[in-house]
Amino acid sequence: MAMSVIDFLFGRPLRSSEESTERLGPAAGIPVFGLDALGSAAYGPEAALTLLISLGALSIIYIVPITISIVVLLGIVYLSYRQTIEAYPQGGGSYTVAGQNLGVFAGLLAATALMIDYVLTAAVGISAGVGALVSAVPKLHPHILGLCLAILVVITLVNLRGSRETGFVFMIPTYLFLASLGGTIVLGIGKALLAGGHPTPIETPPPLPSATAAVGLWVLLKAFASGCTAMTGVEAVSNGVAAFKEPVVHSARRTLTTIIACLALLLLGIAYLCRAYHIGAVEPGPGYQSVLSQLTAAVVGRNVFYYVTIGCVLLVLAFSANTAFADFPRLCRLIAEDGYLPIPLAERGRRLVYTWGITVLALLCGALLILFGGVTDRLIPLFAVGAFLAFTLSQAGMVGHWLRNNGSRMHIFLNALGALATAGTVIIVTVTKFLAGAWITTLLIPIIMLMMFSIRRHYDELQAQIAQPGHLDLAKVRPPIVVMPMMAWNRVSRAGLQFAFNLSSEIYVVHVSTAKDDASPEKEKDEFVRYWRGTVEEEVRKSGLQVPQLKVLKSPYRAVIMPIVDYALELEAKHPGRQIAVIVPELVEKHWYHNFLHNQRARWLKTALLLRGNRRIVIVDVPWYIDKI
Amino acid sequence: MAMSVIDFLFGRPLRSSEESTERLGPAAGIPVFGLDALGSAAYGPEAALTLLISLGALSIIYIVPITISIVVLLGIVYLSYRQTIEAYPQGGGSYTVAGQNLGVFAGLLAATALMIDYVLTAAVGISAGVGALVSAVPKLHPHILGLCLAILVVITLVNLRGSRETGFVFMIPTYLFLASLGGTIVLGIGKALLAGGHPTPIETPPPLPSATAAVGLWVLLKAFASGCTAMTGVEAVSNGVAAFKEPVVHSARRTLTTIIACLALLLLGIAYLCRAYHIGAVEPGPGYQSVLSQLTAAVVGRNVFYYVTIGCVLLVLAFSANTAFADFPRLCRLIAEDGYLPIPLAERGRRLVYTWGITVLALLCGALLILFGGVTDRLIPLFAVGAFLAFTLSQAGMVGHWLRNNGSRMHIFLNALGALATAGTVIIVTVTKFLAGAWITTLLIPIIMLMMFSIRRHYDELQAQIAQPGHLDLAKVRPPIVVMPMMAWNRVSRAGLQFAFNLSSEIYVVHVSTAKDDASPEKEKDEFVRYWRGTVEEEVRKSGLQVPQLKVLKSPYRAVIMPIVDYALELEAKHPGRQIAVIVPELVEKHWYHNFLHNQRARWLKTALLLRGNRRIVIVDVPWYIDKI
Repeated sequence: MAMSVIDFLFGRPLRSSEESTERLGPAAGIPVFGLDALGSAAYGPEAALTLLISLGALSIIYIVPITISIVVLLGIVYLSYRQTIEAYPQGGGSYTVAGQNLGVFAGLLAATALMIDYVLTAAVGISAGVGALVSAVPKLHPHILGLCLAILVVITLVNLRGSRETGFVFMIPTYLFLASLGGTIVLGIGKALLAGGHPTPIETPPPLPSATAAVGLWVLLKAFASGCTAMTGVEAVSNGVAAFKEPVVHSARRTLTTIIACLALLLLGIAYLCRAYHIGAVEPGPGYQSVLSQLTAAVVGRNVFYYVTIGCVLLVLAFSANTAFADFPRLCRLIAEDGYLPIPLAERGRRLVYTWGITVLALLCGALLILFGGVTDRLIPLFAVGAFLAFTLSQAGMVGHWLRNNGSRMHIFLNALGALATAGTVIIVTVTKFLAGAWITTLLIPIIMLMMFSIRRHYDELQAQIAQPGHLDLAKVRPPIVVMPMMAWNRVSRAGLQFAFNLSSEIYVVHVSTAKDDASPEKEKDEFVRYWRGTVEEEVRKSGLQVPQLKVLKSPYRAVIMPIVDYALELEAKHPGRQIAVIVPELVEKHWYHNFLHNQRARWLKTALLLRGNRRIVIVDVPWYIDKI
Repeated sequence: MAMSVIDFLFGRPLRSSEESTERLGPAAGIPVFGLDALGSAAYGPEAALTLLISLGALSIIYIVPITISIVVLLGIVYLSYRQTIEAYPQGGGSYTVAGQNLGVFAGLLAATALMIDYVLTAAVGISAGVGALVSAVPKLHPHILGLCLAILVVITLVNLRGSRETGFVFMIPTYLFLASLGGTIVLGIGKALLAGGHPTPIETPPPLPSATAAVGLWVLLKAFASGCTAMTGVEAVSNGVAAFKEPVVHSARRTLTTIIACLALLLLGIAYLCRAYHIGAVEPGPGYQSVLSQLTAAVVGRNVFYYVTIGCVLLVLAFSANTAFADFPRLCRLIAEDGYLPIPLAERGRRLVYTWGITVLALLCGALLILFGGVTDRLIPLFAVGAFLAFTLSQAGMVGHWLRNNGSRMHIFLNALGALATAGTVIIVTVTKFLAGAWITTLLIPIIMLMMFSIRRHYDELQAQIAQPGHLDLAKVRPPIVVMPMMAWNRVSRAGLQFAFNLSSEIYVVHVSTAKDDASPEKEKDEFVRYWRGTVEEEVRKSGLQVPQLKVLKSPYRAVIMPIVDYALELEAKHPGRQIAVIVPELVEKHWYHNFLHNQRARWLKTALLLRGNRRIVIVDVPWYIDKI
């Protein structure tokens, strides 16, 4: 029953051999690896316009050249990544490319930057999606954080089912998004051209505020830096090449080209329409309207088409987080396989997905959403530093790759250009956004890298300790000394003692007396000790076996665990070279909640023995199952 | 280091023989067992006046007869409990008295009522204390719940240290409270008498609202029922007689007499002054002022004395919760010793206090405070039902006691009177408060009792199953069959195998292959299986010992735990009468957080074996400690 609920939520378990059926063609690849890049068209222009609010009406003049610069940068990065796909058909994420060509440090730096970026991609995608929803349905304004978290849960569950089904789930909204937003833009441009560049909006957007600052380089750079968030997610395809259908390079390149072309057209179209329709950003808070909501309402009015478009924006933005869920776990696996992240991150779960990676991402993303209240604007400044740092290291690595593998001059030139352009962007983004949040990213990167190196050192030292086991010591094979704690004589302790006889003839039965020092220990002795001396010892003697030694320990502080551990350690010290087996008879209840009814001495004893023991002390758990209660 | 922090917070561990030094005289007994009763003077009159708000100016007329009825009832209950202390010098709580004289059902009913009551006592005490604080410092109004929880934490820590020190901690505020509030009342009465019953307040209390309802029996009964909360906590002394110094009965009676006399005088004094100074209750919310705050400000003004008095009210109210912390765990212990509550509740911790009882009470009280936002008025209606039900059952039990033990007519009469009076009150409280919250209590009582009976049944059946172990089966002593899972050959698995040879000569080494069905298993076989066949088997053969059988299990779903468990079950089925020892080699890290670096297979395997195994499958945990990383 419990299993079938799990199957329903997560799908049936998949065999390792079913892996190849989980590969993607371009049609399914665009939703899986392109949602992030495409979805960012919805928050990139908005982020740039938000920085320009202080310029008033001039903001819609400057958005056009800023967008053009971003699209040029996008083109350079596109050409670079085409070459990466070609050179690394087995998957050439920044971690691999930088690591193989520039060394471990550069690889881990790129990986760290990218990991931070994926977490932010997920958080920003979800929060911007909810922002679109709130623009359409202002009543939902107080529930922003709750909506964000609900969407996060859905995405997490879908991803735990596995990547092929993920592709299908996200296909319809992605193509509907391209069709509806693309349609709006085409229609808007047509209307604008017919009206000589000055179309009449069907729903007039809120008036642009009056300027409060003069145009300056600083504000334009900040707007450019914010707008660059539109480019995050571009590396997803090259990172995930291995997930594509044969011929891998061809499928991946077609997917990348389609994604970048759509993204560039969307960005340019939005910028042009903002200028034509006089649409600027609106400060967050009550009355907030996203740029895309204003734009759609201006072009088509608030009719069914508006709601379909905004619905698709919501879905695509929210699910653009899915790119992070597809790529973050794959990245973690690569790093974990190299020993720089915990090994459970490299293990695939029952549905062939990296369960732990997905879970870690979901938790980090949830924490971020809660911390920043689900407001996109507060998350944007942390963003983009990571993505562009990874771009830079990846392109620089590609330059190294071509130099060593006799690449053509064109190859080298394109990747070097990409590296320089993105390096410049990293500097612009870090400097202009430092105080607004980029400092957090700048601080996290060295902390995470330190953690990674110390994890690797731990594994190395561990490996050195457990490797080269040498020979078995078979000359000294000898039954262990058995320590058998016994509080009372019943079927549970009898089962333990019975097993003790199977193990060894040297048995020490330990009874802990918790009575007051003076009065009752005699009574307690009467109960257990008398029965032991009278009946049990007699029985053993008659059978010809060696009679176990009874040791009564007093415990004035009522602790029963530590005296037993101490006694085992004492015996171990007295018998060098021998192994001590401590038998822990354990009552196993049928239902977990019945555990509250017992004092869990067996569990505490096992834990204490593990913590305070040593390699010669072995714990033998003899379970005693209750029939049915 | 960790130990010394614990010692600092909770005090050094105490020997069982130190118990007698933990007993109380009347001077320390009043704070420990009387804080609840005395503190309720601060919320009882207020609760009654709150119900009378709708009567406007008439409320202060009717508060006097209502208070007199409550004090008469208090007198009857006092006389009853004096007799209980006499008859049960070893501690005569309602559970004991009702259980011994009216049967198990009545005893558990009384106990359940009392347990609910203790939780409410703690919650109401704390919330009313914070109410007093907020009256004096209105700025703190938004932090009511936070303050409540902080006080709860302090009380819990103090109680985990043990009861004698608890007495000392609460002594000063208790006596300061009696002195300052008593002083205010005496001064106020003096002023009122001098002014012919119409004194001039120094700070004029808020005007009484105009009447919105006519005087009726229903509203007076409701006010009476709410005012009865002032009587909760009166049974604490008789319940805890055993904690007093010798002569026990004398000490306990003197303590009870003092508590009741002080309480009666406070209640009458407050009622008189409310009437003389025209002080009514104020609705909760901003601008809230507690009755005691108005009263003190009216009599002495808002000077240092006012703040001292309110400070003492806060401390006493908040710490009146302490009565619950002293008595709830003791009650739980009695019930647990009879098998109706989980046995851990009957065990004393390192400081001779019932750690689990205190913890459970703290959690329930915290939940209640969070649920009701720390507002006293919302908690009051749940209250009092439990206390008066316990009173009734206890007095009725005493009647039975005297009948069977030849008590005097006076004895029988007083307890019967007490039973009737309190039974009447139970009916009034339940009926008048049913919709406002008493239904919750009425519903909880049968649920908790059902739980208690099913716990007892569980213990009984368990006892029946494990008792009478019969004879050891010593004819069949024979080494177990050993199952040894091995993923790789290293020092950890070598240590496990080494121990396996100590146990038995029948060893099955199980290797789980998680590779894809077709390709890589051969490679995997190469790595481990080849080494095993080539080196290890050879080594064992040379030593003359029996070579362990190697079994390779394939796991297409990448699960490594279940195949091992299934194999152990299979072996067990094949060898009836034999015991199977599954050896689980376990890497023990020095730091707990290092556990995240490993996939915890050993732990999962142990859990799965315990859950799916049976009595013939024994788990042998061979720890391998890492030296120092």
